[in-house]
Amino acid sequence: MKTGSGKLILIGCGPGATDLLTLRAANRIREADLVLYDRLIEPGVLDFVRPGADRLYVGKAPGDGGIQQAGLNQTIETALRAGRTVARLKSGDPMVFGRAVEEIEVAVSASAEVEIVPGVTAALAAAADAGIAVTERAEIQSFIVTTGRAADADTAPDWARLMKPGVCVAFYMGVAEAWRIQSALMAAGVPASAPAVWVEQAGRSASRNVETVLGRLAHDAVQAGVSNPAILFVRYPYSLAAEVASARVAAAG
Amino acid sequence: MKTGSGKLILIGCGPGATDLLTLRAANRIREADLVLYDRLIEPGVLDFVRPGADRLYVGKAPGDGGIQQAGLNQTIETALRAGRTVARLKSGDPMVFGRAVEEIEVAVSASAEVEIVPGVTAALAAAADAGIAVTERAEIQSFIVTTGRAADADTAPDWARLMKPGVCVAFYMGVAEAWRIQSALMAAGVPASAPAVWVEQAGRSASRNVETVLGRLAHDAVQAGVSNPAILFVRYPYSLAAEVASARVAAAG
Repeated sequence: MKTGSGKLILIGCGPGATDLLTLRAANRIREADLVLYDRLIEPGVLDFVRPGADRLYVGKAPGDGGIQQAGLNQTIETALRAGRTVARLKSGDPMVFGRAVEEIEVAVSASAEVEIVPGVTAALAAAADAGIAVTERAEIQSFIVTTGRAADADTAPDWARLMKPGVCVAFYMGVAEAWRIQSALMAAGVPASAPAVWVEQAGRSASRNVETVLGRLAHDAVQAGVSNPAILFVRYPYSLAAEVASARVAAAG
Repeated sequence: MKTGSGKLILIGCGPGATDLLTLRAANRIREADLVLYDRLIEPGVLDFVRPGADRLYVGKAPGDGGIQQAGLNQTIETALRAGRTVARLKSGDPMVFGRAVEEIEVAVSASAEVEIVPGVTAALAAAADAGIAVTERAEIQSFIVTTGRAADADTAPDWARLMKPGVCVAFYMGVAEAWRIQSALMAAGVPASAPAVWVEQAGRSASRNVETVLGRLAHDAVQAGVSNPAILFVRYPYSLAAEVASARVAAAG
């Protein structure tokens, strides 16, 4: 057995559909000796694992028989030190909410080679499903991906500070924080009429869009029964900012 | 010939490498009667066009024999009205700096079906090449994609306003504006030591990383001869903001 010459490949598998896999991802999965996957990976993706390679389910829903991150890191390290090629499959893109840093550190400490295969991130699959251009000439120059999760107010991203004219924001996993997101943005002066869309199950055939506006996004999420995995888009085009500004001038005049 | 039942498929082809195509993109290219491509599309991608389908080069470098957007829209409309399936190939993802809105409007006005196939956007291919996690637990909660191009100061995105602690920003095509980006961020109080990386030719085998920091990014771009297509990353982790704040307190005390 080879030792000390292992390779870790972090592979973005796209969200929700086997055919959102890239050709490179499919090829790298075929090369692996050990394939680590979790509950977000489509079963069809595993069809690319070569016969004879090992597969290991690593969770991560509580109580689902998966292993914790520390145990996972240990498994990766042991395989790399034994000279194996380890493919760690990630839903979406490995560098976006993928906890890639920890696993890369494990590989570096085991003197193993690291390759990262980019993937289609969930927000862009959602944008395709909903027909939303996340940038738009003269209207939206910046696209922001952020987490819609917050353990408490101190650790929540400062959403209001990010949401400026010319911006489209995609909130990942924001269903539970819908009201907090809505009220933070409205308190910061983003118009209640700013267009918003919930995209549930992005990339999947069961994908569903719920169109709304900032001022109703929490209400409409409850009404429509939106549940995670879901992406929330809120758009603040320059033309909307200009309209609101001129309405204010008219009201004052 | 069928009429009025055409279909427009906007296909994200990923940046710089044929194997960053998704399986879905490859399948949709095979289904098309007419394939429209530009100079950013890898030649190998065209191997998926089925024999007998038409291919049309649409530019878009000035003077390169391509056609202008108005002519392109006309070509799409004519084909759709004739009932054809038109694949418009886009580098990266179609909804990110892809001018998708105009082409979708053409299809809608021709009563044609529209499908959007998401792709690997250039920033995530660049992040993979450079080994940069664009989000990181407890350090970076938001990832921003913006244009590094600005015709003049009035139309430049307000970069400084976007760059806050807990953020990683990817600037597309920012080489010409490197000095303006650097000075805007520094004037807004982002530390000169904030880590930055230029990634040239993301996704390609010729990809190159130039690691630098905010305070030297324009200088280092010139020194290393960085040229477009390039993505510039600037990261502002929470721990850096905390360090700078405590150094200021120490200096004042």
